[in-house]
Amino acid sequence: MLQDKYRLQIPGPTPVPPRVQHKMARPMIGHRDPDVSKILQNCSRRLGPVFGTEEPVLILTASGTAALEGAVVNTVSPGDEAVVIVTGAFGDRFAKILSRYQIGIHRLEVPWGESCTPDRLAAYLQKRPQVKAVFMTYCETSTGVLNPIADLASVVKKYTNALVIVDGVSAVGGTPARMDQWEIDILVTGSQKAFMLPAGLSFAAVSQQAWSVIEENQQSRFYLDFLTYRSKMEQNTTPFTPAVSHLFGLAEVLDMLEEEGLEHVYSRHQQMMEMTRTGIRGMGLTLLTKDEDASPTVTAVQGGTDWSVEELRQELRRMGLRLAGGQQHLKGKIFRIGHMGYCDPLDILTTLSALEVGLTRIGVPVQLGTGVKAAEEVWI
Amino acid sequence: MLQDKYRLQIPGPTPVPPRVQHKMARPMIGHRDPDVSKILQNCSRRLGPVFGTEEPVLILTASGTAALEGAVVNTVSPGDEAVVIVTGAFGDRFAKILSRYQIGIHRLEVPWGESCTPDRLAAYLQKRPQVKAVFMTYCETSTGVLNPIADLASVVKKYTNALVIVDGVSAVGGTPARMDQWEIDILVTGSQKAFMLPAGLSFAAVSQQAWSVIEENQQSRFYLDFLTYRSKMEQNTTPFTPAVSHLFGLAEVLDMLEEEGLEHVYSRHQQMMEMTRTGIRGMGLTLLTKDEDASPTVTAVQGGTDWSVEELRQELRRMGLRLAGGQQHLKGKIFRIGHMGYCDPLDILTTLSALEVGLTRIGVPVQLGTGVKAAEEVWI
Repeated sequence: MLQDKYRLQIPGPTPVPPRVQHKMARPMIGHRDPDVSKILQNCSRRLGPVFGTEEPVLILTASGTAALEGAVVNTVSPGDEAVVIVTGAFGDRFAKILSRYQIGIHRLEVPWGESCTPDRLAAYLQKRPQVKAVFMTYCETSTGVLNPIADLASVVKKYTNALVIVDGVSAVGGTPARMDQWEIDILVTGSQKAFMLPAGLSFAAVSQQAWSVIEENQQSRFYLDFLTYRSKMEQNTTPFTPAVSHLFGLAEVLDMLEEEGLEHVYSRHQQMMEMTRTGIRGMGLTLLTKDEDASPTVTAVQGGTDWSVEELRQELRRMGLRLAGGQQHLKGKIFRIGHMGYCDPLDILTTLSALEVGLTRIGVPVQLGTGVKAAEEVWI
Repeated sequence: MLQDKYRLQIPGPTPVPPRVQHKMARPMIGHRDPDVSKILQNCSRRLGPVFGTEEPVLILTASGTAALEGAVVNTVSPGDEAVVIVTGAFGDRFAKILSRYQIGIHRLEVPWGESCTPDRLAAYLQKRPQVKAVFMTYCETSTGVLNPIADLASVVKKYTNALVIVDGVSAVGGTPARMDQWEIDILVTGSQKAFMLPAGLSFAAVSQQAWSVIEENQQSRFYLDFLTYRSKMEQNTTPFTPAVSHLFGLAEVLDMLEEEGLEHVYSRHQQMMEMTRTGIRGMGLTLLTKDEDASPTVTAVQGGTDWSVEELRQELRRMGLRLAGGQQHLKGKIFRIGHMGYCDPLDILTTLSALEVGLTRIGVPVQLGTGVKAAEEVWI
């Protein structure tokens, strides 16, 4: 095979478009340069529609986990109680962060591969109306589940005064987020998913209700103090040296999203999901999630009892296609296909046909062309 | 003037070498890809000589301030006492971080523009032997002072059991750092200074003595927990998604430093400092610092009573040269020339000649050519 040619179909980091790479290679400028102020002002405003908010979107130089920790240290304090909806590895990460800060954690455990239903959350919250915040994951990257965030947020607001804090990594930019309309209080994502950038930036949008909590919160924080980011953002700057080359790239990414049109971006992701799922079924494999729980950005596929998911991934890698494995107890049990960001229907057909060949090569009986055909029928 | 041509002579971010930009534009790969593991293993080992340590160097995705906060939250806890040597804005930043964490702060204030002498520190510590850590700045970027870190560390070790925690931003990679030999416990820097990368990565090397303190320290932390970085580094990975494109660039930067040879890198910086200082004096301006306090990476120059530093910077910017102003109470009183990273003696001659023209244009009497001539004499 051609040594250096490969397709990156993992659920992040995702491929960086050439025009974004080109902008990122712009010669360096000072972080207090007026050009950086213009970019920050421009990007913060243009991020609003992607988050579905009128609030300014904060830009942090750090990976997504730092912004998730920011959502914790800005809103709750030791001794506070919070609910974490754990539908997979990233819900679990929220719980891990909270446990470091001596928050009383109520883990609402949902079997991995399923979404949390509003009814389940309602029953759980009715017994715990005192919690200060409910942490949830929009797209659970580890399973490919999209939680029904709008309905979950509405349940929180009905039964508690808690803040709704949402991990939007792997979702925002690939599927609609209407933070203000859905009454989400903090919505976070990272740059290396549907935003098509390398990792290095993360984003957080904060509601007015959350700001009033944050203003009162005494938890120690410095680099992750959202108040500092807000006050500096009002001056079109950042409290600490930002990843300037990523900011150059971010402006270009926003151009791309606007040129395509956000609604089309979302329908493209929806279509890629449908093609992927139909194709996987068409070749006789089993999906981890039900259709109604499926995320438009990542699809998890179950392994078989008589073949190795890891052997398949290795074979595909040799063929020029990179897929992700499972995390934690799903390691070796599933593989995951990322279909977000700089990705289109033809990439899905490529992925499915590579899968047909790869499965055949490792001895899994599969009728060649069946998965691709099924996906083509979705696309035509 | 040519609209898009300019020289970036600020003390960070510094210019990114074209070959580094080229590597950073390598197509994205997964952060759990074996190639990333190889890069991490390779870079951590090769960072050692730059920090002067046998310990592995931790790599964080965040700007330098986050690593400074990491040095705080991993080593001290509320109620502990610490000394901060404040020689400028970045010593002050250490104090600001500590104050967020309810640390009893003893500020050793040194007039901005001067270094902290070992005697001054000895006298200060003799009255405060109980402190858990002494925080100091190697190069104080806001004034161009290089503190005598080796001697200061030795004073700390003589009078206390405190950890020596050093902000090496604007120093490491541009001037020798011999962390193990000097008994520094934590040495931190960022990527956008002498490391010639965009901002987005920061680095921390940790001594055995510091690790034993960190292992016992109960301060809440997650993204900045050095123990997690160490344990993941032992597996050649990172706890959270790293800025992969920066890692591509870092490997190339280390190639460049090794090809030139670290000793030559340091003597080049030393030479650029001497040329800058001699040239500034040659054109009749006044330096902020004494020669013995001067940093090889940044030089601060005093403004005059009858002309405006900011007007000069604006004029130079129009001419194609970008210099930095002063910070905090030095704003409008000084300007700063960065000479670190991807910078050579010819850049210094360019800077000095631009200064001669810029000063003349804003009406400051200067004899054209005198600064450049003086610097050339240093270089020949």
